[in-house]
Amino acid sequence: MILPQPIRDLIDHLSELPSIGPRQATRLAFYLLGEGRGAVKHLSLTLAELLKVKVCARCFFIHQNSDEFCGICRDPNRDQLTVLITEKETDLISLEKTGRYRGRYFLIGEIPRTGVLENWQKDRLGVLKKDLQTAGQAKEVILGFNPTAIGDFHAAILKKELDGLAEKISRLGRGLPTGGEIEFADDETLGASLERRS
Amino acid sequence: MILPQPIRDLIDHLSELPSIGPRQATRLAFYLLGEGRGAVKHLSLTLAELLKVKVCARCFFIHQNSDEFCGICRDPNRDQLTVLITEKETDLISLEKTGRYRGRYFLIGEIPRTGVLENWQKDRLGVLKKDLQTAGQAKEVILGFNPTAIGDFHAAILKKELDGLAEKISRLGRGLPTGGEIEFADDETLGASLERRS
Repeated sequence: MILPQPIRDLIDHLSELPSIGPRQATRLAFYLLGEGRGAVKHLSLTLAELLKVKVCARCFFIHQNSDEFCGICRDPNRDQLTVLITEKETDLISLEKTGRYRGRYFLIGEIPRTGVLENWQKDRLGVLKKDLQTAGQAKEVILGFNPTAIGDFHAAILKKELDGLAEKISRLGRGLPTGGEIEFADDETLGASLERRS
Repeated sequence: MILPQPIRDLIDHLSELPSIGPRQATRLAFYLLGEGRGAVKHLSLTLAELLKVKVCARCFFIHQNSDEFCGICRDPNRDQLTVLITEKETDLISLEKTGRYRGRYFLIGEIPRTGVLENWQKDRLGVLKKDLQTAGQAKEVILGFNPTAIGDFHAAILKKELDGLAEKISRLGRGLPTGGEIEFADDETLGASLERRS
């Protein structure tokens, strides 16, 4: 059966998004069609608006300020000499939501599994290095990578890259997740919770 | 943490889509942002193109023909006196994909659980009734509703509405697993349900 080109295009497009399969894409496309002209136009405009978002010249998180820095990087009440490095914006948001961190961030982007940084990631890292050299040694760099084998691998690479640029280089603490149960925790997690008890 | 308005708008928008939660919406929004200007613009344009799709004046399925009828409704090789009524476009697509049906379709839209048709659905049904009256009695009307209690209920309503307008009013064969949904059935099961309709 031949569907009109615009809906096939939309289905193809939606299928390419992460965690959306062709079936869900089809349902979404017809849902949007069913919502009518107003809804489709609105989503189309919302996407166009997205192009107005800027990226911070220091940490590479998004912002909409008139200058080139995000709200956190220009905040004098945040400790600008403590830098938490994360891969994804969504990781940064989750960490910031805790309200327990008063330093600044740095977004390196998703590191390829090989551990070889992309050119744009090398450029970003260059900005951070220069930044730390100019400001004098950072008090602490926290490597906010996932507590997995691949996260350990990537953290080791970054640690080497930033050697000598911070008084201290740390990782996020490992232990039992709050709300979790000892009975169901894996050996690694339990071991970490014993070693790093507080 | 305050995210720029455009990304918050997009997250809100995506969250409203069926089967997408706020977490997936956030990931999708940042994915689109990460894909850059070209990709965002392309999706925005794809959505705008969707507005050019037309709806068939006879069966209410989508099309892009120059006149007001879809490819199936204007096809002289399809049996125009056999009408399969479905609720959703995705149901119609699944049934058509089996290649085992040679009649035409009629999209009534999703019937509210109460069984009371919306005004636009009454209008659509009016078109079908007039159509069947003009063409003379239809050979068969197949009620392509889900094999569920609610589907049975809706089929009974339609059966009553179309009383006397078709020689035969049938349902899809119960080759379909009871409790399942048309959209998710495999081609074989759907094909059998077309052949053994009762």
